[in-house]
Amino acid sequence: MPTTLGWTIKDWQQAYRDGAKPEELVGELLDCLDDADSAWISRLDKQMLNKATAELAKRLAAVGGDVEQLPLYGIPFAVKDNIDVVGFDTTAACPAFGYRPDKDAAVVRKLKAAGAIPIGKTNLDQFATGLVGTRSPYGAVPNTFKPEVISGGSSSGSASVVARGLVPFSLGTDTAGSGRVPAGLNNVVGLKPTKGLLSIDGVVPACRSLDCVSVFALTVNDAARATEIMAGFEPSDAFSRKPPASLPLDAPAIRRAGPVQRIAIPEAPLFFDDRQAEAAWNTVIGQWRQLNGAGIELVALDFGPLLELAALLYEGPWVAERHAAVEHFMAAHGDEMNAVVRGIIGNADKFTATATFKAQYRKEALLRQIDELLTDVDALLVPTAPIAPTIAAVKADPVTLNSRLGTYTNFVNLADFCALAIPAGFRDDGLPFGVTLIGGAWKDRELQAVAGQWLNAYPTTLGATDKPRPAEAIAYRQAVPTVQVAVVG
Amino acid sequence: MPTTLGWTIKDWQQAYRDGAKPEELVGELLDCLDDADSAWISRLDKQMLNKATAELAKRLAAVGGDVEQLPLYGIPFAVKDNIDVVGFDTTAACPAFGYRPDKDAAVVRKLKAAGAIPIGKTNLDQFATGLVGTRSPYGAVPNTFKPEVISGGSSSGSASVVARGLVPFSLGTDTAGSGRVPAGLNNVVGLKPTKGLLSIDGVVPACRSLDCVSVFALTVNDAARATEIMAGFEPSDAFSRKPPASLPLDAPAIRRAGPVQRIAIPEAPLFFDDRQAEAAWNTVIGQWRQLNGAGIELVALDFGPLLELAALLYEGPWVAERHAAVEHFMAAHGDEMNAVVRGIIGNADKFTATATFKAQYRKEALLRQIDELLTDVDALLVPTAPIAPTIAAVKADPVTLNSRLGTYTNFVNLADFCALAIPAGFRDDGLPFGVTLIGGAWKDRELQAVAGQWLNAYPTTLGATDKPRPAEAIAYRQAVPTVQVAVVG
Repeated sequence: MPTTLGWTIKDWQQAYRDGAKPEELVGELLDCLDDADSAWISRLDKQMLNKATAELAKRLAAVGGDVEQLPLYGIPFAVKDNIDVVGFDTTAACPAFGYRPDKDAAVVRKLKAAGAIPIGKTNLDQFATGLVGTRSPYGAVPNTFKPEVISGGSSSGSASVVARGLVPFSLGTDTAGSGRVPAGLNNVVGLKPTKGLLSIDGVVPACRSLDCVSVFALTVNDAARATEIMAGFEPSDAFSRKPPASLPLDAPAIRRAGPVQRIAIPEAPLFFDDRQAEAAWNTVIGQWRQLNGAGIELVALDFGPLLELAALLYEGPWVAERHAAVEHFMAAHGDEMNAVVRGIIGNADKFTATATFKAQYRKEALLRQIDELLTDVDALLVPTAPIAPTIAAVKADPVTLNSRLGTYTNFVNLADFCALAIPAGFRDDGLPFGVTLIGGAWKDRELQAVAGQWLNAYPTTLGATDKPRPAEAIAYRQAVPTVQVAVVG
Repeated sequence: MPTTLGWTIKDWQQAYRDGAKPEELVGELLDCLDDADSAWISRLDKQMLNKATAELAKRLAAVGGDVEQLPLYGIPFAVKDNIDVVGFDTTAACPAFGYRPDKDAAVVRKLKAAGAIPIGKTNLDQFATGLVGTRSPYGAVPNTFKPEVISGGSSSGSASVVARGLVPFSLGTDTAGSGRVPAGLNNVVGLKPTKGLLSIDGVVPACRSLDCVSVFALTVNDAARATEIMAGFEPSDAFSRKPPASLPLDAPAIRRAGPVQRIAIPEAPLFFDDRQAEAAWNTVIGQWRQLNGAGIELVALDFGPLLELAALLYEGPWVAERHAAVEHFMAAHGDEMNAVVRGIIGNADKFTATATFKAQYRKEALLRQIDELLTDVDALLVPTAPIAPTIAAVKADPVTLNSRLGTYTNFVNLADFCALAIPAGFRDDGLPFGVTLIGGAWKDRELQAVAGQWLNAYPTTLGATDKPRPAEAIAYRQAVPTVQVAVVG
């Protein structure tokens, strides 16, 4: 076990302030990684580490040796293997698809510029198609609490290495829940930012119009810090967005700026007979109600239109975006793909252009219903995953269980919401339980503030380690202001 | 010829102030309409007029007889026959498709509430598919200056009846130029508002994600007035939009608020060997340069990315939106459709869901290039239509000429721009020449202000009448402010 096990960003920073060297600390960490660990697809070797620390030394010299100017100096992180990092193949968990990128993904470039060191590429459901963590030729990733249970996916490896405290944060991607489901099943934070806040430049697309880079971390503080460093408009990425100058005053509360106080929960939450999850949810809801001193109020709503939107993503033509991403590869190498993934992406054939536009119209109509439903609530609170099946159960029924796992995640990107999956105690069987806060685009900071309130009130140990949770220190701050208009000109 | 020929809204208002009665003035107008006029598909009869004026009398009574509270009291207008008006069939120029609506389109409802009287439904290229005005079983609509020349379309009839001064304004629709091309070819104003500003509730869709209700009028004042009255969010219409609280300060100039001063013109404008159009354009550009006292500056730019976006709409999967709109009708009654229109919409079959998403990605990438290109310009100025072919020429080559007509209109809605087609003098052959101002969404008012400057400096007679053009009185006003942010909370 490395010395650094379960360290947060702050712990790493303290060690460097106390005189530790990146080559030593990260070197020791690399020595402790297990070759048989299915969470990794590739890892930094000694030579690559030397190169990385030499680059880091140059960066430090360039800022006059002032470590404070490299906010992630020497901090190791892991990267889902559908995101480009120079020196590693990008496989998307499909070896035949693998390629060696000649530049870093925009988000990786920014993390490196801040001093962070990518120490490896992590396993995933192939082409980020799945919420289970079992659809990979590199092996199923076991749950960090119970190895017979799934890790969740598709960012299975990135969640696993954070939960076990190997790195303080990692990058995932999240199209339909891939950055949240595995966070929930492994007791870590999964930050799914507003679409376009983090660039998808250098990321293998799943559904390009919906894809987000996401962050796993042990704490909200760390997830927020990494996000802040990666944020920013990338002109080369057509899906990158600048935050608006302000959020409208006349939008539904879910899309207006302001502190998260009135929170909607599903009136009749679905757990598909998972009594443990249901019991955990009921406990958690009771605890959230105790936060009313902090101004929190829960409101039960009929989530019908949200679930219908989720089904539209799951069953509708958006699967053709996955096909668009791998069309040529699949035509030539379909037999080298995971059979379940190939079957899913193959469904793109069923949808015409006409059906696509009709589904997009349906989406717009549902968004109207959703905005109406959420006129008076600042955010949603949902179970991150309603079930926690075993790997064996998923292998026996790979599609149904996967679909159930996405019940509370699938609708989020289609609705232009941001989300934050956070730990929320444990089920009676010892598995972690997670909840997710969801709000309108650009309300990331608002979600983080209320998540911090929750974690400070009901802390759990960090990930699958036995380390106690430090206090979250994120104060309420509007990511994007609601403005009083002062006309210019 | 009716007394009211060539009257603007102000002229009608003055007549009512002077004691005229709607039943008399509109009655006389209806008596003058010609049964053989292919601009009309249906018109108000005497019985319907009595009903309309009785309703109007009730409205007036409801506001205590105060005509000022009905800003369009007794003013007749025409409606393109793909927009629902109670009492008329909606045919979309396809009799077999026709139906009798049980409520008015949202825009018609608002005009009626302001006191206006719809006097008839106008001819169009069937299902608003065309820019020519010839694709209708109700006959080709002749140009109001030279009957052997096309009127332009698809809103052929609505442009024609305004150009001839029968009504002060009319409603069209505009997906790819249908509200601009016929304005340009008939010396009237064609206002294509920001997408979503006017609801498309009660409009037969062409491409729902792009469709706009548009306005034809003799003056910018009148087009702007009608637009203002019809504007407003409609919750039932998933494509209706609220104006943002502000436009961003860090957007390219084309999408920022502010007066229109730096205007881009195409570096190498295309006229497809139409020397008359080319000469008119060169004259007009010279005149615009003389407006530099008003702060106007012209900048020649390479319009490549804009033309590529135009081609993407014309040749890409958006045709499947037209198919989505008439899918069931076409399956059962394809043989009752115009053959050219059927052929075009039938192209939807060529596009898969995968191709649709890929084209949407290409669109996003082009928008980035376009925003880069237009970083420093407040608006575009283009020929409204680069050619003015005869009806015979279009019948001989219905697709190529149609495509050329859309050179400077096709890209506008895909790019989320607003546009304003305005008269700009005459060609040597006596046909009118038009130019179009184009700006980012929500800059409608800014375009109107600069259009007014132009028309005041270089007035032409109104439409195809010999009436002199009154002064335009639209002052610069930001439709949506750019704000200095004053954080709340």
